[in-house]
Amino acid sequence: MPEVIDVTFEPGGRTVQVPRGTLISEAAQATGLSLATPCGGKGLCGQCQVIIQSGKAGEPTEAEREHLSPEQLSQGMRLACQARVMDDAVIYVPATGELIADKSLKAEMVRSVAVEPHVRREWLRLAEPTLDDQRSDFRRIADAVADRCPQLTADPLVLRELPATIRAADYQVAITTRGGKLVSVHPSDAAPPYLGAAVDIGTSTVAVYLVDLQTGQQLASVASANSQAQYGADVISRIEYANTHTEGREQLRNEVVALINELIAEATDRIGADRQQIYEVTVVGNTCMHHLFLGLDPQHLAQAPYIPVTSEPMNLSATEAGLAIHPQGNIFCLPCIAGFVGADTVGVIAASEMTRRQQPVLAVDIGTNGEIALWSGEALLVASCAAGPAFEGAQIQQGMRAAPGAIDHVVISNGDIDITTIDNQPAVGICGSGLLDGVAVLLELGVVDTSGRFMDGQGSSGLSEAVVNRLEGEGNERRIILANHQQTSGSPVALTQRDVRELQLAKGAIRATIDMLLDYVGLAPEDLDEVLIAGAFGNYIKPDSALRIGLLPQMPPEKVRGVGNAAGAGAILALISAAERTYTCQVAEIAQHIELFRQREFQEIFAERMLFV
Amino acid sequence: MPEVIDVTFEPGGRTVQVPRGTLISEAAQATGLSLATPCGGKGLCGQCQVIIQSGKAGEPTEAEREHLSPEQLSQGMRLACQARVMDDAVIYVPATGELIADKSLKAEMVRSVAVEPHVRREWLRLAEPTLDDQRSDFRRIADAVADRCPQLTADPLVLRELPATIRAADYQVAITTRGGKLVSVHPSDAAPPYLGAAVDIGTSTVAVYLVDLQTGQQLASVASANSQAQYGADVISRIEYANTHTEGREQLRNEVVALINELIAEATDRIGADRQQIYEVTVVGNTCMHHLFLGLDPQHLAQAPYIPVTSEPMNLSATEAGLAIHPQGNIFCLPCIAGFVGADTVGVIAASEMTRRQQPVLAVDIGTNGEIALWSGEALLVASCAAGPAFEGAQIQQGMRAAPGAIDHVVISNGDIDITTIDNQPAVGICGSGLLDGVAVLLELGVVDTSGRFMDGQGSSGLSEAVVNRLEGEGNERRIILANHQQTSGSPVALTQRDVRELQLAKGAIRATIDMLLDYVGLAPEDLDEVLIAGAFGNYIKPDSALRIGLLPQMPPEKVRGVGNAAGAGAILALISAAERTYTCQVAEIAQHIELFRQREFQEIFAERMLFV
Repeated sequence: MPEVIDVTFEPGGRTVQVPRGTLISEAAQATGLSLATPCGGKGLCGQCQVIIQSGKAGEPTEAEREHLSPEQLSQGMRLACQARVMDDAVIYVPATGELIADKSLKAEMVRSVAVEPHVRREWLRLAEPTLDDQRSDFRRIADAVADRCPQLTADPLVLRELPATIRAADYQVAITTRGGKLVSVHPSDAAPPYLGAAVDIGTSTVAVYLVDLQTGQQLASVASANSQAQYGADVISRIEYANTHTEGREQLRNEVVALINELIAEATDRIGADRQQIYEVTVVGNTCMHHLFLGLDPQHLAQAPYIPVTSEPMNLSATEAGLAIHPQGNIFCLPCIAGFVGADTVGVIAASEMTRRQQPVLAVDIGTNGEIALWSGEALLVASCAAGPAFEGAQIQQGMRAAPGAIDHVVISNGDIDITTIDNQPAVGICGSGLLDGVAVLLELGVVDTSGRFMDGQGSSGLSEAVVNRLEGEGNERRIILANHQQTSGSPVALTQRDVRELQLAKGAIRATIDMLLDYVGLAPEDLDEVLIAGAFGNYIKPDSALRIGLLPQMPPEKVRGVGNAAGAGAILALISAAERTYTCQVAEIAQHIELFRQREFQEIFAERMLFV
Repeated sequence: MPEVIDVTFEPGGRTVQVPRGTLISEAAQATGLSLATPCGGKGLCGQCQVIIQSGKAGEPTEAEREHLSPEQLSQGMRLACQARVMDDAVIYVPATGELIADKSLKAEMVRSVAVEPHVRREWLRLAEPTLDDQRSDFRRIADAVADRCPQLTADPLVLRELPATIRAADYQVAITTRGGKLVSVHPSDAAPPYLGAAVDIGTSTVAVYLVDLQTGQQLASVASANSQAQYGADVISRIEYANTHTEGREQLRNEVVALINELIAEATDRIGADRQQIYEVTVVGNTCMHHLFLGLDPQHLAQAPYIPVTSEPMNLSATEAGLAIHPQGNIFCLPCIAGFVGADTVGVIAASEMTRRQQPVLAVDIGTNGEIALWSGEALLVASCAAGPAFEGAQIQQGMRAAPGAIDHVVISNGDIDITTIDNQPAVGICGSGLLDGVAVLLELGVVDTSGRFMDGQGSSGLSEAVVNRLEGEGNERRIILANHQQTSGSPVALTQRDVRELQLAKGAIRATIDMLLDYVGLAPEDLDEVLIAGAFGNYIKPDSALRIGLLPQMPPEKVRGVGNAAGAGAILALISAAERTYTCQVAEIAQHIELFRQREFQEIFAERMLFV
């Protein structure tokens, strides 16, 4: 019988046990990952490239030598359909656009607003020049829009083709302007739709939303794993990479810029548009992602007193940003608030409009870093906490991100445990909401006590036989099977004692932060009108479970609402409405950042909130 | 005796007669041109490259084959110290920075103004960050200057090195801003002076003035022949070139951009500065030069109704303009007024402050194209006329630009004719002021009559013997020697009947334009408080002569003032003073362009004003 080895796929951290000598593509499939293999795994297309980050694979095949340069091979790049893993290995799968479940993309918080973007289009019938009217070509346009746009300007690049265009168009043109600047001129009858893109750069996932700027309609959304993950799974390790490698910062910037360009191309291709039709891009992301996208030095974010290079809203040209859109295109980066409260949180706050409400509202964005925003009715407080990656499926033995095959919900059914998975695929792992539900169910059943400890042999006496049969191992190796052989395509999926401890760390940090913020403004949980859960996680979360494990303070579950990718929604709103963009900047300005780390009682409260009481 | 051939050097059009087989460098020397030959003409340095535009030279020498590629040789490029002319030839001498007499560069109109440029520097002592003060690095700077500059912004490029710089500088920094934008940050004790450059792009000559933006002091001025001349001597032929050659427009743009970069390098080298110290460049030039510098299509300038692409003031980045200065540098192009009244005229008007005066003032900028500005005391009128290139020394048989060896003045001395030359060099030709003086003297002596005709044999009877001895030829070949063998290093320099006719065309056009503008606002010549003559020409002009030949209407000569390169002065003022820049833009806005071409009586008045009455 062949020896069994562990193969872990990044980003996402899904691990599978396979016999030594298994093809990487087969190992990937066993975890539910679908790699792009257009040629059916025959080594013909070269599409299924992966990078072996650690561990050993067999000698490259002829097909691999054809598709990969010696340099690529020496860097560990291989074809998944050709290379066999010979030892425990960590394998990085570059962005494929296939990893992200559609649901986690939903920017459902995009409120109904008047579509009045900075980019505008007007159709003009210009007066033809005569000896009595010797105005320049540009002046002719500027005069025609003078009442709406008194100080129109234009770059030489736009002016270079102007004379030819307006004469060929017989002086009937469609002009596109952005903030008082002429950015393109087309013949009236040949002006393609003008588009915008909202980009959400997450540490794990980058999402692009393509929007029609005339109608505000979302035309396409695409996403992919953030390919910076090959340099570090979390912000701290990427900052470390940037600091310790020559050109490291530039490398990380190039990585995310290239990925955004790919996603933009994919989104425009999908609707048969051209990237040149995109005149504006808005960008959200946490402060580190924001810095890396702009090529700014992130090192001071990681050490006290956690100083960003800038947290202002920023406009830059497409060229400066390196984005392949219209050459006159503008990139607007939403403002950040602090070193660990970024533009993504600003997007969440703006999308939720919380500061326009009379009643107190809490918004929680849960990722590796948790950001909490509290609107007291008068003041806006924000804080962050190092929640750890448990809710993103990392550090959890069989954890994974919210992708097809992830256990997203766990329920008690006829005294036994039952599950659902994303897209109803065979279970391959547990995502954040599944973890939350799973622990809630274990608490409910009494499998886990309020300290987070699994029941031992004696303690199991009160449990149903079905549940007892699911329990395995002892002490720290104690675990409970959530998905058995029939529900998976490979090994069973279980939740372990260690997994529960990871969850406790995460929920303890978030809950402590929430409680301290409420305390800071003298509010009680019952004063909250609503609690919004943002992020991919928020799309799947069951309020009852969140309340059961004490992630949130006690309140009626109907007050808890998952709002999906609210950060992305904030970026979309800032894209389609100049007024909303202004509001977004105001939000960042009034936000008061509370550095809880400094509060002596944080550790104390944190330790207490780790318990399930 | 070897056959004599004609060799003409461009730009400048100096012609010399030399024996067939003469070295190009020797022929050049005979015209007063000094080519760069650091190696002493031994074919070692390859610096004396010229282009044979027409005519024949001997086979390339071994030295030429070493320094020039086969492609260059096939394009007519040769080394002047090696190649011998074998037939009548036109030889183009690329820019060397040696051709321009210093005097013509003088921007003496630079008035005393408060030095308050758009580019500013401030020295700041920043508060060090703490957990109580987590402002971003950028915010720390923005807050420090908030009262002077409430909306400071910065590009990522500047922010990328910011954290390292301010920490290395121990939070004591010198910042440079331009119009509300942070453009650089240096340690307080290591900030080099911040400079600006004013660029005057003439059809024939490009001049660069390097200015200290803190003191407003002019540090260096350099100039060179406009190397676009190889594609056409005047604006019309360059427009034609741009239209009829693929990439022609781009070629002309690259040519002038490269030349400006060379001149900037020369100017900074001269004072031991670095080009990166230049944060702003202001640019003047006629409308065609303006368009070609910006890469704009000039073709509609050349045909009725003479429509520019744009005539607005324009800001563009150093990158867009292609200028090698500070990467955050800004280029400000002064506004134009019409197709043939460019930013150079705007510069002249602004430098002269004419519109701030109570009394009427006239400004005349004489080049191939003459531009006339009239301030009536209430309104500003501008007009242009095709003066022809006579005053620049072209179309004049022995004409040349105002360079060393040019006859700049002609006087009557003891009944005979006497001359002076620029830099007291042996006479090699006649420049504009020499032509003007010469014709005035001929009129005074009675050598030429009021119709412009040279006296024939009979008519010469009233002339002194010395003068009669200078007369040669008959009819249209009639000519008078201005500089004899003793005064030249080669053949005598003479003024011909055809030269006088060329002058008449030029002065007729300018004078007709002046008279019609005066008439337009109901002013008489005696109402004028002052007449300003701008351009290289204006530095040398004798008011008496200008009045004698009727270039200007009759008035006391003390009302006529040469003001040198007033266009360049306008560019310098717009560089060192934000207020003057605003004034410059206002000038262009209020200017009323009169298209005299359309006035039926123009031809009539023009014909009349060609006479010397």
